[in-house]
Amino acid sequence: MSTDTAGTARRTEPDCIFCRIVAGEIPSDQVLADDAVVAFHDLEPKAPVHVLVVPREHTRDVRELAEDPALLAHVVDVAGRVARELADGDFRLVFNTGENAGQTVMHTHAHVLAGAGTIDESSTGEL
Amino acid sequence: MSTDTAGTARRTEPDCIFCRIVAGEIPSDQVLADDAVVAFHDLEPKAPVHVLVVPREHTRDVRELAEDPALLAHVVDVAGRVARELADGDFRLVFNTGENAGQTVMHTHAHVLAGAGTIDESSTGEL
Repeated sequence: MSTDTAGTARRTEPDCIFCRIVAGEIPSDQVLADDAVVAFHDLEPKAPVHVLVVPREHTRDVRELAEDPALLAHVVDVAGRVARELADGDFRLVFNTGENAGQTVMHTHAHVLAGAGTIDESSTGEL
Repeated sequence: MSTDTAGTARRTEPDCIFCRIVAGEIPSDQVLADDAVVAFHDLEPKAPVHVLVVPREHTRDVRELAEDPALLAHVVDVAGRVARELADGDFRLVFNTGENAGQTVMHTHAHVLAGAGTIDESSTGEL
């Protein structure tokens, strides 16, 4: 558990790389942050804009995030803001959910893909 | 506008293909349906399981859907149920948002991609 500036208890996992990024223990190329989420550039971008929106609270995946509908909706809002600020406003929003669907960090994160070339002619790509 | 079995007014667009599928005017290969959403197989599947989860209410995209957080969370819940029933439970959840991100039908829909081969080695694919 950790606390935010308002002293609210928040679930964290000490060995989770995204919890450590959220806490500032591991650096990231940050786009924006607020009390609920941090958004930063993906280290291996698959589109001109490829940003991860990560809730500060540790949940495993979007299924668990959906237990807090307001936070889920906030993640979508922030994704839209990222796409407006860094591209033309249009974006692909992706949640990989489970190892067999390519989820590699087991802390919920939304991929925001935007900018020219976001979509190619191939099938579903690895993220 | 249309009404559901409880007589609740719901926003619809007469020329929207997904509103017409939801209303049963155009057939679909349905997976499940409830008062709020309809899920059906994509006509051009990009994975062994490729299902669209479509809120009955007409909104344009996930940004607008997020104005109703409970409905957004329900779409995620249904996506998880589809992945459990038709595959191993893991899935990629995708919302294409805007024409430049490959959105072709301007009625919010979640792509649920699941099953072996969901992820390939290429970049972001067209959906």
